[in-house]
Amino acid sequence: MISIDFTNMMASAVDNGVTDEEWEEAYGAFATVHKGVETLRSEGVADFMNLPRNAPLLQQAIDFAGRARGRYDDAIILGIGGSALGPIALKTALCRSGWNELSSDARSGHPRLHVLDNIDPVTITAVLDRLALERTLFIVTSKSGGTAETMSQFLIAHERVANAGLKIADHFVFVTDPTTGALRPLAGELGVPALDIPPGVGGRYSVLTPVGTLPAALLGINVADLLVGAGEMLDRCATTDLSQNPAGIIGSLFYMSDVRHGRVVDVLMPYADPLRDFAAWFVQLWAESLGKHRDDGKSVGSTPLPALGATDQHSQVQSFMEGPANKVIAFIAVKDHGSDIVIPSAFEHVTELGYLGGHTLGELLDIEQRATAGALAKRGRSNLTIRMEKVDARGVGALMMMFELATAYAGQMYGVNAFNQPGVELGKQFAYALLGRPGAEAAKAQWDALPKPDPRWSQGD
Amino acid sequence: MISIDFTNMMASAVDNGVTDEEWEEAYGAFATVHKGVETLRSEGVADFMNLPRNAPLLQQAIDFAGRARGRYDDAIILGIGGSALGPIALKTALCRSGWNELSSDARSGHPRLHVLDNIDPVTITAVLDRLALERTLFIVTSKSGGTAETMSQFLIAHERVANAGLKIADHFVFVTDPTTGALRPLAGELGVPALDIPPGVGGRYSVLTPVGTLPAALLGINVADLLVGAGEMLDRCATTDLSQNPAGIIGSLFYMSDVRHGRVVDVLMPYADPLRDFAAWFVQLWAESLGKHRDDGKSVGSTPLPALGATDQHSQVQSFMEGPANKVIAFIAVKDHGSDIVIPSAFEHVTELGYLGGHTLGELLDIEQRATAGALAKRGRSNLTIRMEKVDARGVGALMMMFELATAYAGQMYGVNAFNQPGVELGKQFAYALLGRPGAEAAKAQWDALPKPDPRWSQGD
Repeated sequence: MISIDFTNMMASAVDNGVTDEEWEEAYGAFATVHKGVETLRSEGVADFMNLPRNAPLLQQAIDFAGRARGRYDDAIILGIGGSALGPIALKTALCRSGWNELSSDARSGHPRLHVLDNIDPVTITAVLDRLALERTLFIVTSKSGGTAETMSQFLIAHERVANAGLKIADHFVFVTDPTTGALRPLAGELGVPALDIPPGVGGRYSVLTPVGTLPAALLGINVADLLVGAGEMLDRCATTDLSQNPAGIIGSLFYMSDVRHGRVVDVLMPYADPLRDFAAWFVQLWAESLGKHRDDGKSVGSTPLPALGATDQHSQVQSFMEGPANKVIAFIAVKDHGSDIVIPSAFEHVTELGYLGGHTLGELLDIEQRATAGALAKRGRSNLTIRMEKVDARGVGALMMMFELATAYAGQMYGVNAFNQPGVELGKQFAYALLGRPGAEAAKAQWDALPKPDPRWSQGD
Repeated sequence: MISIDFTNMMASAVDNGVTDEEWEEAYGAFATVHKGVETLRSEGVADFMNLPRNAPLLQQAIDFAGRARGRYDDAIILGIGGSALGPIALKTALCRSGWNELSSDARSGHPRLHVLDNIDPVTITAVLDRLALERTLFIVTSKSGGTAETMSQFLIAHERVANAGLKIADHFVFVTDPTTGALRPLAGELGVPALDIPPGVGGRYSVLTPVGTLPAALLGINVADLLVGAGEMLDRCATTDLSQNPAGIIGSLFYMSDVRHGRVVDVLMPYADPLRDFAAWFVQLWAESLGKHRDDGKSVGSTPLPALGATDQHSQVQSFMEGPANKVIAFIAVKDHGSDIVIPSAFEHVTELGYLGGHTLGELLDIEQRATAGALAKRGRSNLTIRMEKVDARGVGALMMMFELATAYAGQMYGVNAFNQPGVELGKQFAYALLGRPGAEAAKAQWDALPKPDPRWSQGD
């Protein structure tokens, strides 16, 4: 269902590519990498690997969606980061194109979905003003219940619903830790249903928990298939034979290209509109897992960059092709787009139009992907192509598990903890200090000691 | 209206920052850089600088929009790259949030806008199927008329409209070169109105031509103000005194940080939902202009990366903070969001919620931006903050001109032509070869000589 061609990553195809010797070395080291991740799994840190077999957790989402069927025209996720990027990626990949603009009939009675992944008052005002609150469900997603952005949104939405005289328990659902955090007791206090994020699953690995499966089930996506696909990929990656492990191949190639060949940027470039937002989901997964200050004092991790084909051929590809050779470009090509359109033959006297007629759009997209990959290789730019049969729930589940495993493997190779994010703490503390949150006094002192804006280094006030 | 604080770029604030000596050097060199761009302008290459004073060109868009008023419910741009990114950025910045989901009344009778910036058959089928063709306007934007993606879309849309028995001239408008290319004669043949892209304005610098102003005017955006803002910024950047030239400051800092300090990635991170798509517009501008193979054989150009605050604090910021110090982060902070919401005080017994009540969302967004900038500086990560009064047409016009000028200046510093894109030609030729377009025989021979997929370097077929 998913295959990888990485010929254009190797020294036989591109200058400064991965050599046979490096590949042998990675091959030899992979059993240890694989074992490291399995150890984390047994310690309860890498619980995302247990999600495909967690039927009761999946059932929570299916049951809630079943009870909610027909009750809501709009579902609104209050969530940010991993609480938003997974659901957005699933909606774009697996709902009909232009979902929120379709009629209720065309949506088979499933709700529209809005994801409030920021705290810009303009957006939040606009969304709250245009919805019929009595037909709206708010999904509040935060594992800790401590996310300032999400909690602010919750306070605002809660007040709106209360002021409208509606029952809070009918218009909210929480997705949060089963026992700890601020939302769990609040659910009890308010009688709001609450679905679980298992303790061993972090935000960016949570798309296959109710963080992703609840909104997906509400939209009518086949969430069981999503987990089937993820489970199949997990099985495929049970092998310690690197050449048979697709997640291992991706993790190893990205890692080696970064640390051995200075290819410090990893571009993910699907050639399919439904995977437009998948790249943003991958960006968080890779960046937040691997961009780390290591115990030995070294800052590591390659930088992920999202792109979309064919669109970015007219934007970023010039720089991929001729700019510094510091990138790996990973394409995702889709064999069957589900529908296709034949380009009509017309205006055949015009050179720029005449040759197009008779081809299909799907064929054009496929040709452009192959042409771009070939041209990049010819210019010495490393690239690989992931091919998938079609963008359906099973395929997307497999793709997500593949990238999650690739990230976990890469964590072992870089020697970092791929499951924490200590680097964002200082900014949080500074924000708490500026907001006057109790306990942030030490951060306030650090803040006050920062260099002040220097008039010499500013312009235009 | 727009100010820049770049204290956190300098060696006085961050390790490996720009030194006073480097600044002096850039300061001394800037007159030559500035003159180089003025020379290009006089040669007709940098005609984007003449757009703010090109009243007749603006009038073309205003007149067409005036005649179209009330006739269309949906406008569809067929265009890719610069033909799409500018209009998308303008719509997101200057139309009401959730525009396409608003009622016609809430849109004051202005049409919805859809931008078909790709050739995925799924998207195109969905859009064409759900629209009422008799109330739809197709805007076909291509300077050369030779863009395969756009021409394919045009052939499909043309057939649909013709088959519906509608008059082509009533449902199409072209935006193209005034004299050359494939679309201009076709406009004559079909009686389709055609607006101009001046010969000296390339795709990624074209947002202030009818490429951007036509859709903007159709949506009711004050396009005159857009050009006023751009003109004011142009005037402000007339000076060769680097310390007074905001575009010069940005171009110089990005350039120096790349070539002297290994900060090879430039992140643009607005803290405002309306500027969400502005970053993608900047990415094309910077990447396609500066990612170049120079005549001396060196590949140059830093890599632009889009981000959004506060959202990306929960995605990419971990890696900005702790990953390799190879980035510059440029924030855009907005003083007045136009509306604001007070976070209600509730659940004050809960630590995670209690401190939020009484603050506004706008205040929270502002505090988070400052906290993130401060934390980055403390970790030795270069950053600067662009502050704008509000996201209105005048401000956005100024911002766009500032980044266009910064890119043109940087082209001089890197020693590259910032107005061509030779690197995409090989991929195009390979695609022509695979499509069987006459004249692509040489490319076909090159294609056939590429390394074939190696079974050793593939998995899963």
